[in-house]
Amino acid sequence: MRQKIVLLGTGNVATHLFKSIQNTDCFEVIQVYNRHKKGLDFFKNHTDTTTDISQLLPADLYLVSISDDATAKFIAQLPVNSLVAHTSGSVPLQTSQQHNGVFYPLQTFSKEVAVDFSKIPLCVEADSTQSEALLLHLAQVISSKVYRLNTDQRKKLHLAAVFACNFVNHMYALADTICEKHQIPFDILQPLIAETAHKIESHQPAEVQTGPAIRHDQATISAHLQQLHVDNLKEIYTLLTQSIQAQNGSKL
Amino acid sequence: MRQKIVLLGTGNVATHLFKSIQNTDCFEVIQVYNRHKKGLDFFKNHTDTTTDISQLLPADLYLVSISDDATAKFIAQLPVNSLVAHTSGSVPLQTSQQHNGVFYPLQTFSKEVAVDFSKIPLCVEADSTQSEALLLHLAQVISSKVYRLNTDQRKKLHLAAVFACNFVNHMYALADTICEKHQIPFDILQPLIAETAHKIESHQPAEVQTGPAIRHDQATISAHLQQLHVDNLKEIYTLLTQSIQAQNGSKL
Repeated sequence: MRQKIVLLGTGNVATHLFKSIQNTDCFEVIQVYNRHKKGLDFFKNHTDTTTDISQLLPADLYLVSISDDATAKFIAQLPVNSLVAHTSGSVPLQTSQQHNGVFYPLQTFSKEVAVDFSKIPLCVEADSTQSEALLLHLAQVISSKVYRLNTDQRKKLHLAAVFACNFVNHMYALADTICEKHQIPFDILQPLIAETAHKIESHQPAEVQTGPAIRHDQATISAHLQQLHVDNLKEIYTLLTQSIQAQNGSKL
Repeated sequence: MRQKIVLLGTGNVATHLFKSIQNTDCFEVIQVYNRHKKGLDFFKNHTDTTTDISQLLPADLYLVSISDDATAKFIAQLPVNSLVAHTSGSVPLQTSQQHNGVFYPLQTFSKEVAVDFSKIPLCVEADSTQSEALLLHLAQVISSKVYRLNTDQRKKLHLAAVFACNFVNHMYALADTICEKHQIPFDILQPLIAETAHKIESHQPAEVQTGPAIRHDQATISAHLQQLHVDNLKEIYTLLTQSIQAQNGSKL
């Protein structure tokens, strides 16, 4: 018999999770809850739906996938006894229920774009071995990348992702600004950008650092700084050059 | 009849260019020059080789692929009359020969790793229409990504690449440091890193910026700064957050 899941929330993560769970042999979403009727449109053709928190069906897992800010308060008022897990990277493991867990997929989702969940890292945490086992089982049937991370690790992962993704994208944006200003098509850089991201799948980033900073090529660094006429860019160039050299120096 | 090329230099770029040119119908490397005999080992089974600058064969193009620092001086003393082009991104178009050009492949090369030149951007510059036509022809038969860039644009492209590749790799390295310190496997971030690089193939980077900075999510930004105990990281986090917000603000 398939284990029963009630899904609470109808956003991007919830929608993709729903589709993925319904394809498994071991789990089944038997009900979807949403505060407003509107969000349930897609789901009501596929499963039971409700907007009434007092009408939740009995299940093995209540999976809460709503906005980060609302998660803790919402979980605290859920009238259930089984495991309650949320999907937020930034919300700690809760303590308000009898059984608490976290089921966090680390990826950006758009509703329209199909997602291959098998390649999305799933981070699991729970307050008992039994709850953890259930979440690990669910994670393993929908993804090949499953990790056990505690609340503090999840927090640090979120911070690391700001550097590895948000700040990286801003570096792309600054490069794009430079290109645009000089009528250089940004797509000349695409192969190099793809290669830079690809290289760290098999190497530690610090080991494959290239460029004038790591070579201590002061002539090029000075020439670059002279070409940067916006204070902001000068400052970023200088700080990151120092940081690359410091990181390398600390390994010597 | 195939156009004749003499290749000067035997480094990574020269080796990959050699293999790629020999596969074309329109061009042929008829000789490879190197200062030292040793570098010629690979080439001497495939074409004529020499270590003597006075023994260069007559050709349509002399392609100089040696270290950036040595390029200008080396070209000035070449005893030839045809087009001389170099492969360096950071060296200006020369004026020391009768016919001068640049043939710059924008990619990092390792000798061992096979390179699909058809996907590598080639940037071409020359001091006459005729020379430019020859270089564009050569570029088009070995790559589908051919660009005409002048010396100043090539310089700016190099600067943009520092942001889009060298600094990006350093962001990966900083994320790796955070992960390592908290026993988080860095590869959890791989799918997100790949997605971040992939997204800008079809979107302008500034348009797809995500994260607490662009959302002006001050609670998360403060929480992140509190977790960063190294001054260096705090400073980078603050500066890049401000820069993201300034860039976004300037577009409003």
